[in-house]
Amino acid sequence: MNTLPPAVLPELIEAVGPDWVISDPDHLLVYEADAQTAHNLAPQAVVLPSDTREASRVARVLHVHGVPMVPRGAGTGLSGGALAMEGGVVVGTSRMNRILEVDPENRRALVQCGVLNTNLSDAAAPFGLHYAPDPSSQTACTIGGNVAENSGGPHCLKYGVTSRYITGLRVVLPNGDAVWLGGQGREASGFDLVGLFVGSEGCFGLATEVEVALVPVPEATRTLLAIFETLGDAGRAVTAIISAGLLPAALEIVDRNTIKAVEASIFAAGYPTDAGAALVVEFDGIEAGLELEAEETVRCCEEAGAREVRRAESAEERLALWKGRKKAFGAMGRLAPDLLVQDATVPRTRLPEVLARISEIADRYELQVANVFHAGDGNLHPNLVFDRRDGEETRRVEEASKEIMLLCVEAGGTITGEHGVGADKRKYMPLVFSNKELEVLRGVKRVFDPAGLCNPGKVLPESGVGS
Amino acid sequence: MNTLPPAVLPELIEAVGPDWVISDPDHLLVYEADAQTAHNLAPQAVVLPSDTREASRVARVLHVHGVPMVPRGAGTGLSGGALAMEGGVVVGTSRMNRILEVDPENRRALVQCGVLNTNLSDAAAPFGLHYAPDPSSQTACTIGGNVAENSGGPHCLKYGVTSRYITGLRVVLPNGDAVWLGGQGREASGFDLVGLFVGSEGCFGLATEVEVALVPVPEATRTLLAIFETLGDAGRAVTAIISAGLLPAALEIVDRNTIKAVEASIFAAGYPTDAGAALVVEFDGIEAGLELEAEETVRCCEEAGAREVRRAESAEERLALWKGRKKAFGAMGRLAPDLLVQDATVPRTRLPEVLARISEIADRYELQVANVFHAGDGNLHPNLVFDRRDGEETRRVEEASKEIMLLCVEAGGTITGEHGVGADKRKYMPLVFSNKELEVLRGVKRVFDPAGLCNPGKVLPESGVGS
Repeated sequence: MNTLPPAVLPELIEAVGPDWVISDPDHLLVYEADAQTAHNLAPQAVVLPSDTREASRVARVLHVHGVPMVPRGAGTGLSGGALAMEGGVVVGTSRMNRILEVDPENRRALVQCGVLNTNLSDAAAPFGLHYAPDPSSQTACTIGGNVAENSGGPHCLKYGVTSRYITGLRVVLPNGDAVWLGGQGREASGFDLVGLFVGSEGCFGLATEVEVALVPVPEATRTLLAIFETLGDAGRAVTAIISAGLLPAALEIVDRNTIKAVEASIFAAGYPTDAGAALVVEFDGIEAGLELEAEETVRCCEEAGAREVRRAESAEERLALWKGRKKAFGAMGRLAPDLLVQDATVPRTRLPEVLARISEIADRYELQVANVFHAGDGNLHPNLVFDRRDGEETRRVEEASKEIMLLCVEAGGTITGEHGVGADKRKYMPLVFSNKELEVLRGVKRVFDPAGLCNPGKVLPESGVGS
Repeated sequence: MNTLPPAVLPELIEAVGPDWVISDPDHLLVYEADAQTAHNLAPQAVVLPSDTREASRVARVLHVHGVPMVPRGAGTGLSGGALAMEGGVVVGTSRMNRILEVDPENRRALVQCGVLNTNLSDAAAPFGLHYAPDPSSQTACTIGGNVAENSGGPHCLKYGVTSRYITGLRVVLPNGDAVWLGGQGREASGFDLVGLFVGSEGCFGLATEVEVALVPVPEATRTLLAIFETLGDAGRAVTAIISAGLLPAALEIVDRNTIKAVEASIFAAGYPTDAGAALVVEFDGIEAGLELEAEETVRCCEEAGAREVRRAESAEERLALWKGRKKAFGAMGRLAPDLLVQDATVPRTRLPEVLARISEIADRYELQVANVFHAGDGNLHPNLVFDRRDGEETRRVEEASKEIMLLCVEAGGTITGEHGVGADKRKYMPLVFSNKELEVLRGVKRVFDPAGLCNPGKVLPESGVGS
């Protein structure tokens, strides 16, 4: 790894003040991972600007010296997107954590990029509003990180992913220029650069301020938990619910291995450990309609062979039903020291077949797979547990992981549902893009980042790779 | 205007067959407008490919000879976007009108770009599904045109605009290469080029095939029509409805001049001609909840001073209540020979003030303005009626129109809500974009269209224009 040109640190200190430039190797270790354990890689320095003006200065310093700039939210991205894969300086957003404006009448808010997802909803709550996209990491992840990854969450089946709620972005381009894309209540005119920037994984610049649309907190919710003997039965219940024309806010499945992990952990949620799968179904909206939807869901689940359907009668019971789903990733820590959190999508109708084949792949590689997934969207998380100190097992995890990706693509799906391509999956991009298509993607990146210094080594495979 | 290089017509004929290349000046007149009467300009030729392969060949011929390519849907865009402003060949999509696949289980369809909006919903209807975005021109406009303009419609308050429903695009690039952006049930991985292409107004290439998400037809609807003495009262009712946390599927206002035009036309809908404004409110969803929502809406309207609230009790009555809104543009033809259909947005809370100022502007220029608007979205259509044979009046229309645009931008809005920038509004782009931002837009266009031959003279102002 190259060392930084000597002028960089002093100039960064001049830009943001001496307290907010980190170069001590011990302190840099905090920034060596993004909750994805496959890579650990510390940057050469970390800089923490407090606003757009400082972020602009920082970008200009790095640009002038030809040093890579790696934007970083809370580091919960799970695909290596916030790591300095080709060296350089991480621009952390933790100080840009101010909510600049909540405008209840127009149902909008303007926040700095480092605001935590839940803090935004808390700020909107007094007005009966919330920010709808709710990734499972919502208590830790930032709005800026959500923008970078176009994050989903359990409720995106009904409410859609991050891009639906972003109306404007203040962006520091890699050369230090600050521009507005959309924003100030405006729809994008011209070309939709807001939509393009959302999901660009830090490769186009740093979004320092984010304007979002808020939506009313639903008047009421109904939450159900159905227990099935097999994963296949749970899948059939999902198909029945969707075919009945119901639109749940959430439709989430956890499989047998996940249930076992949860119930053996401090997060024990009372899911039966001999079950094959549990399905969480939630409806929200105005009170009057919910009872009918809940009843029809119970019927769908029972016809698909549910041995039990529980219903939450209070807010506490609702949280209890969700607990096994929400704490699934935390609980998997019990199964083995390391966890490869996979993320892929398949057409909803292919779910049963793909799940069966994932199970076969895990068996063949003698690995344990624990599935947690957004069933309504066909967004799978087949998670492989392992011990990275065991090199041979780690290799099997990588091989199995690749087979699972190929399987999902062959089934008409794609290589990521919500965690992004990051560093981990750029090798899979040629599975879903032709060379011509990759060239368009590269061309678009060059518009924002002609020098190739903004989050290099992410998303796009090297030129010449592909078919 | 340049003439076409002599090889172009024979090569186009070779690409699509002699019946589908139009160069007779009389026949080209059909393509000289796009329902926007401010410009009339015939192309040098029109070519009508039947599929992606033929469209690819056409694009290649034009590219090789350096001839501008102007994609055209049904020509209902209203901003001059489908006109050959710098000469060249219009690529019409009327033959690409096949519905290639309806996949009810995954709630998707794949269609050629020239399919009419309503025909897609008709094809999905046997499965209880429909295509949600419903521009007022939906019986005439095409899905490909909707993609180009990112069209909205009365129901986009609840359902969102076109971009929310487009999951994949088969695109013929200006050099003739055909690529897939997203599609085949996949979410976009990498950067969101689908989102970028939607709304790009034919400047990036020709979308020949469009994959869309379908949604269930709502189980039931409730439609109300409230009559107010003043436009301000109608605006206050809208604010009250939104503040009550209700989310109507549609919330549409027509003003006094529009009511008068409708009632004097063959579309007479029984709206009282002495009213200041009429508000159409529609809810949809499951039957159980609708009654409560309707009752709360009646209350909001009455508190805002409605002198009458009508409710549709049957499908026929629903159509009757909608008639005055849906036929508004047609009826305005009665007011004068020509109509400048304006399109702009403002934050919803600024509506009353902006409407009052639009009325002042029209008075000052001694013009008649008729307002029809999507009140829930703050999307205004202040329409100016005039007679283009009167040069002095036409000049006043242009001046007033510019003032209205400035007013909307100053109120925090933007220069187009749903009709696009096209040819008419490129001069206003510097009102909402800085030079740096325009340079990014130009850069993105160059990725797709380095030669600058794809729908030139649209959206982006000339380089050097801007502030």
